[in-house]
Amino acid sequence: MAAFQPQDPDFATRVRDSFARQKAMAYIGAQLCAVAPGRIEIALPYRPELTQQHGFIHGGIVGMIADNACGYAAFSLLPATASIVTAEYKLNLLAPAAGERLIAQGMVLRPGRSLVVAQAEVRAVTAGGGTQVAAALATLMILRDREDAPRPLA
Amino acid sequence: MAAFQPQDPDFATRVRDSFARQKAMAYIGAQLCAVAPGRIEIALPYRPELTQQHGFIHGGIVGMIADNACGYAAFSLLPATASIVTAEYKLNLLAPAAGERLIAQGMVLRPGRSLVVAQAEVRAVTAGGGTQVAAALATLMILRDREDAPRPLA
Amino acid sequence: MAAFQPQDPDFATRVRDSFARQKAMAYIGAQLCAVAPGRIEIALPYRPELTQQHGFIHGGIVGMIADNACGYAAFSLLPATASIVTAEYKLNLLAPAAGERLIAQGMVLRPGRSLVVAQAEVRAVTAGGGTQVAAALATLMILRDREDAPRPLA
Amino acid sequence: MAAFQPQDPDFATRVRDSFARQKAMAYIGAQLCAVAPGRIEIALPYRPELTQQHGFIHGGIVGMIADNACGYAAFSLLPATASIVTAEYKLNLLAPAAGERLIAQGMVLRPGRSLVVAQAEVRAVTAGGGTQVAAALATLMILRDREDAPRPLA
Repeated sequence: MAAFQPQDPDFATRVRDSFARQKAMAYIGAQLCAVAPGRIEIALPYRPELTQQHGFIHGGIVGMIADNACGYAAFSLLPATASIVTAEYKLNLLAPAAGERLIAQGMVLRPGRSLVVAQAEVRAVTAGGGTQVAAALATLMILRDREDAPRPLA
Repeated sequence: MAAFQPQDPDFATRVRDSFARQKAMAYIGAQLCAVAPGRIEIALPYRPELTQQHGFIHGGIVGMIADNACGYAAFSLLPATASIVTAEYKLNLLAPAAGERLIAQGMVLRPGRSLVVAQAEVRAVTAGGGTQVAAALATLMILRDREDAPRPLA
Repeated sequence: MAAFQPQDPDFATRVRDSFARQKAMAYIGAQLCAVAPGRIEIALPYRPELTQQHGFIHGGIVGMIADNACGYAAFSLLPATASIVTAEYKLNLLAPAAGERLIAQGMVLRPGRSLVVAQAEVRAVTAGGGTQVAAALATLMILRDREDAPRPLA
Repeated sequence: MAAFQPQDPDFATRVRDSFARQKAMAYIGAQLCAVAPGRIEIALPYRPELTQQHGFIHGGIVGMIADNACGYAAFSLLPATASIVTAEYKLNLLAPAAGERLIAQGMVLRPGRSLVVAQAEVRAVTAGGGTQVAAALATLMILRDREDAPRPLA
């Protein structure tokens, strides 16, 4: 896989600041773990209030962190004057989202001029190991000259 | 569009009971509004804690209620001894999720023996009207002979 | 559903001319049937060479006409100086593509400034009626100031 | 990535025989290159009749080989008495499909009891190298006890 060159040397700070402004991420307890050019990792510890009736984390919550991992992977490669919105995402649920926490890893596949395509995998982690519980493929739209609006649509 | 015949006359009660067991729906404040054979409506009032940084409801939250509207639309057509899991969903975000509340309408396109395909649209509703903010297309898998397990994977 | 106003009064001619330049459509025998603002219909008569081993039309061929119905539905709403490319599409196969011919109907859901979201349904038609065999949801990207390049990427 | 154990020692022959029965693959000139457990490679040499108006291979044709690479990757892991159908696929087009030939690589992400999830990437290959032109994510449904029906729906 090709390494990406960030256009903004302060991309990591910009990603962390934007993530911190998303109240929905705080509300579910999601944390930004790792930030690299074109690569993002988000962790979500298990909480009973995020579950469906069987104690697994709800598939829609899995989609939230997968979408966000794709979005910030794309955002990390933009110049400081641009922002990103999710145009669409598709999520396959592979196994029940059980475990102590979920880890969503987002990775840019192609950074275009107008659109960025990214993918994510979500793993459920326990003391004994981990298993992939979801795969996502997403299309993000770049908004030029919108410095202070990292994710207006999503 | 064809009308669907439910296999379980008590489908509406079964849908409402299952929805009530999903803690994640209660946590975000989503409510089940309408239940008909193959058709479900879920409402989500605006809350600041569901937003991204611009005050719009997070795209992942939009996906949660779209996914669930598809899932319960499918579930409403099953016999009382079967349950459903989301295999995958795809969501297009069409406009910022602004407004007083969101309404997700799920509708079955094809009820198969093993898989159900459903679609959903999500509208943002204000005093003056509404606008479609998302479209979804989902694949649900039927689990036979799992009476008390409405959504084990999602 | 809202009616769309075309920006180019000659949109139908422009759509037909562009379709006629797609050699792949001629190769599989697809025909453009109906052209309205934001709505396109493509027909594909059955041919043995389009099948998989059971005599049904191949799912990938179904996807080709669904994608194209979405693309030209979007293209019909553009000014004469713009063109369209498919960014992504998702197709659910609902039933075997049997019958005398397939009809793909594409419809714009939202015509944005940069992106157009469209959906398509594909029906298999026989003397006795028809059945929906596929549903698609697609994202198209507008290329401004590319008059003579209706579909450079797709 | 985990290695997969095929359930049928003659999986490669079974895959090749089934592929050979798909008239649509022969019609577009697609060839099965590599067959491994859970991994398939399909090549498609450039032909003018597969193009859109700019000389690139049509996005729907790219989808055909991506879908098929996913389908046969799944099929390779089944017992000899089962077959596979495509439930749905999603394709992102990343770049124009130019070049001397396309290579679609399909890989199983998760082999379930009822469903298999697979992904594919499509590259355009020239004398000087290659570039990824598409990414796909697909859901395949297993049909048990259908020995002679490898792909009835797709």
